[in-house]
Amino acid sequence: VHRQHEVELRRKLKILNAADAAYLLDMLTLDQRWLVWSMLEEHVAAEAMLEMSEAVLTSIVEETDSNRLLKLLIHLDADELSEIAEFLPADVLASAKAQLEAAEQQWLEASLSYPEDSVGSLMSRDSFLVSPNQSLDEVIAAFRAMEEVPEQMDKLFVVQKPRHLVGVLPLTALLRHPGDERVNKVMQPNPVTFSADEDAEDAAHAFERYDLISAPVVDENRRVIGRLTVETMMDYLREHHEGAALAKEGLSARTDLFGPVMSGARARWLWLCINLATAFLATRFIALFEQTIISLVALATLMPIVASVGGNTGNQTIALFVRGLAMDHINRDNLRFLVMKELLISVINGALWGCLLGGVAFLLYGNPGISVVMAVATLLNLIIAAAAGIFTPLALAKSGRDPAMGASVVLTFVTDSMGFFIFLGLATWWLI
Amino acid sequence: VHRQHEVELRRKLKILNAADAAYLLDMLTLDQRWLVWSMLEEHVAAEAMLEMSEAVLTSIVEETDSNRLLKLLIHLDADELSEIAEFLPADVLASAKAQLEAAEQQWLEASLSYPEDSVGSLMSRDSFLVSPNQSLDEVIAAFRAMEEVPEQMDKLFVVQKPRHLVGVLPLTALLRHPGDERVNKVMQPNPVTFSADEDAEDAAHAFERYDLISAPVVDENRRVIGRLTVETMMDYLREHHEGAALAKEGLSARTDLFGPVMSGARARWLWLCINLATAFLATRFIALFEQTIISLVALATLMPIVASVGGNTGNQTIALFVRGLAMDHINRDNLRFLVMKELLISVINGALWGCLLGGVAFLLYGNPGISVVMAVATLLNLIIAAAAGIFTPLALAKSGRDPAMGASVVLTFVTDSMGFFIFLGLATWWLI
Repeated sequence: VHRQHEVELRRKLKILNAADAAYLLDMLTLDQRWLVWSMLEEHVAAEAMLEMSEAVLTSIVEETDSNRLLKLLIHLDADELSEIAEFLPADVLASAKAQLEAAEQQWLEASLSYPEDSVGSLMSRDSFLVSPNQSLDEVIAAFRAMEEVPEQMDKLFVVQKPRHLVGVLPLTALLRHPGDERVNKVMQPNPVTFSADEDAEDAAHAFERYDLISAPVVDENRRVIGRLTVETMMDYLREHHEGAALAKEGLSARTDLFGPVMSGARARWLWLCINLATAFLATRFIALFEQTIISLVALATLMPIVASVGGNTGNQTIALFVRGLAMDHINRDNLRFLVMKELLISVINGALWGCLLGGVAFLLYGNPGISVVMAVATLLNLIIAAAAGIFTPLALAKSGRDPAMGASVVLTFVTDSMGFFIFLGLATWWLI
Repeated sequence: VHRQHEVELRRKLKILNAADAAYLLDMLTLDQRWLVWSMLEEHVAAEAMLEMSEAVLTSIVEETDSNRLLKLLIHLDADELSEIAEFLPADVLASAKAQLEAAEQQWLEASLSYPEDSVGSLMSRDSFLVSPNQSLDEVIAAFRAMEEVPEQMDKLFVVQKPRHLVGVLPLTALLRHPGDERVNKVMQPNPVTFSADEDAEDAAHAFERYDLISAPVVDENRRVIGRLTVETMMDYLREHHEGAALAKEGLSARTDLFGPVMSGARARWLWLCINLATAFLATRFIALFEQTIISLVALATLMPIVASVGGNTGNQTIALFVRGLAMDHINRDNLRFLVMKELLISVINGALWGCLLGGVAFLLYGNPGISVVMAVATLLNLIIAAAAGIFTPLALAKSGRDPAMGASVVLTFVTDSMGFFIFLGLATWWLI
């Protein structure tokens, strides 16, 4: 019976394309994943490696023996290899490279030499170049002579020898003008271009802003050195967004939802460790005031509220500033305005909600002293939270890191420890 | 001098295209925003409305008087109007609609009748239809006869009368085959299609998976009713991701970073209110044990740690499950496996870190009873955190909401209150 199932499965897998195979692998448990992976045809398996999630790719590369891996990689070209190169063991990558033609080997090396989040690491070498003096009929003939049209090719790049970009020729222009027209009469002369060392996220935003499908990458002399496509930019943004959401919780994008239990447990240790360390540190501020708590135990009940309301509004400020930084909306000119505005909001909200909290504390404990301490501590902690919520993402961005990554750990530490310290400190000073 | 600046500014604004104007408006403070907005030429201003952030669009629509708004909207077609319709006052939208031709009016109405996050609300009416029996030369002639080629048109839709989809014809195929070839010999017969009531996020993932630039939207009889483009899908995903990051902190995507202080303060009230309510509720569990705290004040110092470590790991589980749900990787078949795996991880990590925390507590207070209570409470709270971290996003998704939205409020409430309750409860039972 099992045998029969296998035949059936093999038949079904035959009709899968690479994108669907990758999607399937992404949601299978480990043993199902190995079964399906071992049954995929070589070229489908190879292309699926480009489409699957980082987590699954990591586990598959780990478990597949080098010989099979190498057999699969024959089906990939230099562009595709460079996309998954960071996941491959060094020896497998070297052997796979040796299987390529000389020109492709060179391209792969160049591509791997760019930093991870740069345009250079994402560009492909499949640009189609035409000369400004060609007629459209000549261009069409050359276009037909290509073995295969690269994906997402909506325009050809117009270059003067050698490879100096002078414009782009959209395929629609090629179709809409008479064949005897010259390229330089029809081309768009000032296309959006990118440089190889540009940040990939900025490039992706430019693709969104200018609704690009493909665009040339040029060097400092405006020579075409590669091509970016909207497909690559979309994949980059998706991985980036997903990675950011996980990184915020201290997890890697390579965390495999279906992976083994122990590696799942280990994936969380660093974060747990950081969290425990900051929590311990923050509660040391409580330890300073244990005598105060014994004489007024209501303080122990109320102090987590002051800490929590600070953490909460600080995280709102972080979210707003992270968005502003990602969209490139924050700069020197408007920063002063934004900081003043956030602080003013925290004063207004601190006064308002401080009074409310003080009121509720009075209803619960009937002690006007506690109410006043509660109100003032809330106000002060909200101001501190706003300041920390602004400067943490700015400092992270300035040091070249993702402004969201780890920002909320720093913030929570600040608002917890200051919440405890201010609240218990004021209580000790005024009430005891 | 001011006058001279204004002339200079006006000159610079003249050469801006709509995308750049929108980007500029997005990062100006309010008075600068009004100055630039009032100086933009009508057609640039109109198109910029399509590109600017939701927050800025909201504020601009509010402050611009209806007459100017209406004058700008003349420059937009039905597709563009439907994109920003939700931001316009009802009377302005009605007048703008009245300015359109009858066919465009009908399209606008149909488009507005689809729910907000559906494919129908995002599709455009600019499909180019060809018949399977036409020759490629005939198609090219028709293509040239078009007044203007729509953006992001990489393929034509092949339909049998009336509008029944039988395939798609990529522009590259049109260029690469001889002109006397028939469309049905060259077309791709089984294209990826979408239906108008499909979820926009699913459609966007399909665009990523199959590297689409444009795709037909069909009704239940496979009749073409519209077209989706990668540009629209990218914009949708960006807004969706940004909105989600803000929504997680209880903020709307329409929160204007540069808006007035009072509206900035008000934007945060609902979330502050929810946070205060849950924080108050959670600390009621502390109030139950105030007598215990008086007799063993170290408990007050240690209890926030138990709560915090629970909240932390629970948020990791949420992040993993939210990603899994977004990527559509979680289904009935693998859910049981995932739940067991997460619980097992929480037991392993709970035991490990519980012992560590117990050890540190012993070093601090030299009380073995407190250490054991600390260890057991940590273990139990981590298990509860895992369970809450799994079921909160699943329940939100099942009820049709965004699984990330509000999940961490619910989780923090559970892990705080259970952390306090278990830790102080165990201490009362064993130590007092």
